[in-house]
Amino acid sequence: MFQEAIYHQPLGAYGYAIGSNRAKITLRSKKGDLKAVSMLHEDRFDAPGSHGTLQLTLAGSDEMFDYWQGTVESETKRVRYRFLLDDGVNRLWYAEGGFATVGERAGWFHLPYLNLADLFTVPDWVEGAVVYQIFPDRFRNGNKDNDPDGVLPWGGTPTPSTFFGGDLAGIIEKLPYLSDLGVNLLYLTPVFFSPSTHKYDTIDYLAIDPQFGDLETMKELVDEAHKRGMRVMLDAVFNHCGMLFPPFQDVLARGQESEYADWFHIKSFPVDTQAINYETFATGVASMPKFRTEHPAVREYLLRVAEYWVKDIGIDGWRLDVADEVDHAFWREFRSVVRAANPEALIVGEAWHASTEWLNGDQWDSVMNYLFRDACIDFFAKGDIDVEGFDQRLTRVRMMYKEQATKAMFNLLDSHDTERFLTTCGEREELLRLAVTFQMSYMGIPEIYYGTEVGMVGLTDPDCRRCMIWDEQEQNRELYQWFRRMISIRKEHRALRVGSFRSVIVDALANVYGFVRETDEEGVLVVLNRSRFAQSVSWPDGVSGGVDLLSGAR
Amino acid sequence: MFQEAIYHQPLGAYGYAIGSNRAKITLRSKKGDLKAVSMLHEDRFDAPGSHGTLQLTLAGSDEMFDYWQGTVESETKRVRYRFLLDDGVNRLWYAEGGFATVGERAGWFHLPYLNLADLFTVPDWVEGAVVYQIFPDRFRNGNKDNDPDGVLPWGGTPTPSTFFGGDLAGIIEKLPYLSDLGVNLLYLTPVFFSPSTHKYDTIDYLAIDPQFGDLETMKELVDEAHKRGMRVMLDAVFNHCGMLFPPFQDVLARGQESEYADWFHIKSFPVDTQAINYETFATGVASMPKFRTEHPAVREYLLRVAEYWVKDIGIDGWRLDVADEVDHAFWREFRSVVRAANPEALIVGEAWHASTEWLNGDQWDSVMNYLFRDACIDFFAKGDIDVEGFDQRLTRVRMMYKEQATKAMFNLLDSHDTERFLTTCGEREELLRLAVTFQMSYMGIPEIYYGTEVGMVGLTDPDCRRCMIWDEQEQNRELYQWFRRMISIRKEHRALRVGSFRSVIVDALANVYGFVRETDEEGVLVVLNRSRFAQSVSWPDGVSGGVDLLSGAR
Repeated sequence: MFQEAIYHQPLGAYGYAIGSNRAKITLRSKKGDLKAVSMLHEDRFDAPGSHGTLQLTLAGSDEMFDYWQGTVESETKRVRYRFLLDDGVNRLWYAEGGFATVGERAGWFHLPYLNLADLFTVPDWVEGAVVYQIFPDRFRNGNKDNDPDGVLPWGGTPTPSTFFGGDLAGIIEKLPYLSDLGVNLLYLTPVFFSPSTHKYDTIDYLAIDPQFGDLETMKELVDEAHKRGMRVMLDAVFNHCGMLFPPFQDVLARGQESEYADWFHIKSFPVDTQAINYETFATGVASMPKFRTEHPAVREYLLRVAEYWVKDIGIDGWRLDVADEVDHAFWREFRSVVRAANPEALIVGEAWHASTEWLNGDQWDSVMNYLFRDACIDFFAKGDIDVEGFDQRLTRVRMMYKEQATKAMFNLLDSHDTERFLTTCGEREELLRLAVTFQMSYMGIPEIYYGTEVGMVGLTDPDCRRCMIWDEQEQNRELYQWFRRMISIRKEHRALRVGSFRSVIVDALANVYGFVRETDEEGVLVVLNRSRFAQSVSWPDGVSGGVDLLSGAR
Repeated sequence: MFQEAIYHQPLGAYGYAIGSNRAKITLRSKKGDLKAVSMLHEDRFDAPGSHGTLQLTLAGSDEMFDYWQGTVESETKRVRYRFLLDDGVNRLWYAEGGFATVGERAGWFHLPYLNLADLFTVPDWVEGAVVYQIFPDRFRNGNKDNDPDGVLPWGGTPTPSTFFGGDLAGIIEKLPYLSDLGVNLLYLTPVFFSPSTHKYDTIDYLAIDPQFGDLETMKELVDEAHKRGMRVMLDAVFNHCGMLFPPFQDVLARGQESEYADWFHIKSFPVDTQAINYETFATGVASMPKFRTEHPAVREYLLRVAEYWVKDIGIDGWRLDVADEVDHAFWREFRSVVRAANPEALIVGEAWHASTEWLNGDQWDSVMNYLFRDACIDFFAKGDIDVEGFDQRLTRVRMMYKEQATKAMFNLLDSHDTERFLTTCGEREELLRLAVTFQMSYMGIPEIYYGTEVGMVGLTDPDCRRCMIWDEQEQNRELYQWFRRMISIRKEHRALRVGSFRSVIVDALANVYGFVRETDEEGVLVVLNRSRFAQSVSWPDGVSGGVDLLSGAR
């Protein structure tokens, strides 16, 4: 037995509550090493009837490891447990005390008490969500009267500083389009008052930028969206503000005397926007001074902002910009404030790397799943990894997170910060179709970046922020219909939204990937052929015929 | 290279801030596998001058793993890094993306920004602390007037319900004794109004039990202790209350109509203390109803209690009973309230198992280190493990925790909940002496259970709670002097309090253990001979002669 490869801890994604009396347990072992993993569990105070055993099942594998999972029930909410590992030759107990042939010597792992206060909950509506990400300046110009000076004709070439006049009225105007497509959660990149086209340099967190509309327009958008069963999320930039944010201007003007002098990371006074003697977003971005979020007044200010839009305007959640650079303590308070304002609000962080630390249930619900995108690029778009590598990458990312987070992941193929997926595919539309089919049938929330559904292309920012194509002659309508259909299939089959996930065909030779999503009521088999040829596959174990969801044939 | 054995995550005890611009990094590998571990690190936004390399050093080993550690500095507070692993044959890069021969393909681990708000800080005074744990009913009867009915003569045989009349006045009276011994942090098991002798079933969290004194006596104790440079910690039972706690009595009387009906985990009404249809401490302990700490009113009540004793009475910290069964969210609020009341207050949880989850810096500072005790029992008292096993067990526990927690660990040999260590040693005093020598020279805060220093024995509760022996004829004065001397040597040598730790003699044949504690100014070599014979050892590498701290010889 490869003992050194075996890993479990009663924390993070390896041991955690998924209900008031249930905990999910994961154990990692060297790939192919173990034949069976079971678990002895009980209440540590020896409560009558608390003793039980549980067989774990192999939930998936990545390049190096197998992951064994099971769900333990405990009436008393107290669980201690040890594993019995079997590699076909030897059996060993494993727990906090290490490995032993006699159980008692291995000791126990402990989930001392499953407290409801620590239970990771995501809103139920997450189950049916399909996100549509909008970069407001580039989606639709619904009101020419609020166009900023120097606005360019729709469809021009974007630069980092060009304006095209998209606005909230435009989004409202296009709600029927979005409804038809089937998306039901709009995520708008920043809309607050700001000098830039991207608006990540906020001047006023409580005002809509006049080029987009005003509070009334925002309320109208939220109301109209809600009427159509759609939700609206906004983008909060709490890592930094814009240079023109009045408190920062006050510090520029009054230096140490400013009551806001402690709101920022100022290295010396007077503050100098040329020498940039203050911390900023990234490196030396003078226009984006970084907030000192540990300062109580800053926290209070930002928390009130977070609460205002949820409570007073009725938005359904927040996407959080550069969220991994803001302190964990802030996000804990943020979660508590936002959830108090609306228990159904969704919290999604921006982080491009493994985000385990933020997804324990006390901070964010979800993250922009760029690791999902990376895997899709490598498999669908570039063919840099084969079907086995793809399956492993997916497993690896799933095993990073608690299942509540996995269900709420924002699974994106592209965004305002990346090259368009169709461009990455070398404009081979069939690859995008395959990726979208996967995206719409995988665990988590599919996220569509505006325009990808009509075949928009573009290199990374600013090219990926071109104006939405509205001329149906220029739109790829067949692609649009494919998106629409895939969304519709997802909506019709609960198994695709909340079912368990199990890969059943990992055929590297044919380059065919198949997986099953299953609930107690139904199962859906998805088969993706990434090769250039037609392939025939056998029914995988435990799967038999049914309805072909594409043709309707039995 | 045994890739499956290699573990690192940029979180928990593996990657964390130890200062505003410094992070400590640990990587685990199969024992003996790697020859060298180094690290490439930089600001992810490519800040000029942020690029660097770091050589990690082998900090220790346990049964299966080597632990490599290093401290990375970052002016911008943003660190991304990947490891270069060398097993003498192959070199591989390792980061979030896995193992690769080309660094870029391994990707990076990320500590996105070292926020001060998330920095784990423990009070500076922890450095010099030596704890003395007092079970108040059994330490000293200083005031006969407050003796409870049926008090037994001092020195009688304790049962779970006997009273012996010990009180706060007695502790005040014996402060000179404690001063002479050299301890400087008194931890009193519960003193609040309660019917039992142990007082873990609180009636009134804001009143001193009359058998111990009153608020004035407690203030006097705190003041007198402070005058002598000693601190005082009390024991908070926030997991459960006593059956006579007025809110619970109200629920008993008024059932669902009670405004406190939601304060407890009631399974059905009316509440029945015979059938015990409510959750309690442990299993079916009717006298100890469990609090529903997720209820805002309960939280608020308990937080005000926590604040009151720190702020109004001036205690220096809290020991938290059954603390692992109370929710993490509560402890986070608790930390923030207590530290606001006194930024120097210490927070120590009770948990008998690995407590990684509570010691990230947002909840407790420290834990009753029963894993330390387990290792000391197995090595010093019972000889069940040899010196190598002992060294491995110590390493393992150290590697569970961030260094801030390791420095603040309550390293105990026995407590009110365990057999006396001398009894576990089969009353072989030389083994206790050896263990105390180790305890006083190891990392963390030594904790002495009252009476162990004068040779008290006893099986587990209630026998370990015998009356303190005050008759010097009955005290083991030689043992007392040994404790006193070891404490004094610890106080004289900062290296023993805050120095780094490195085991340098792990001689299983001779059963001799030697380690060095080191600061920039001095180093102390401690050599412990666990065998029955005199042993001679060679100077370990890098250690040369100095002053013998026992004999004074050079």
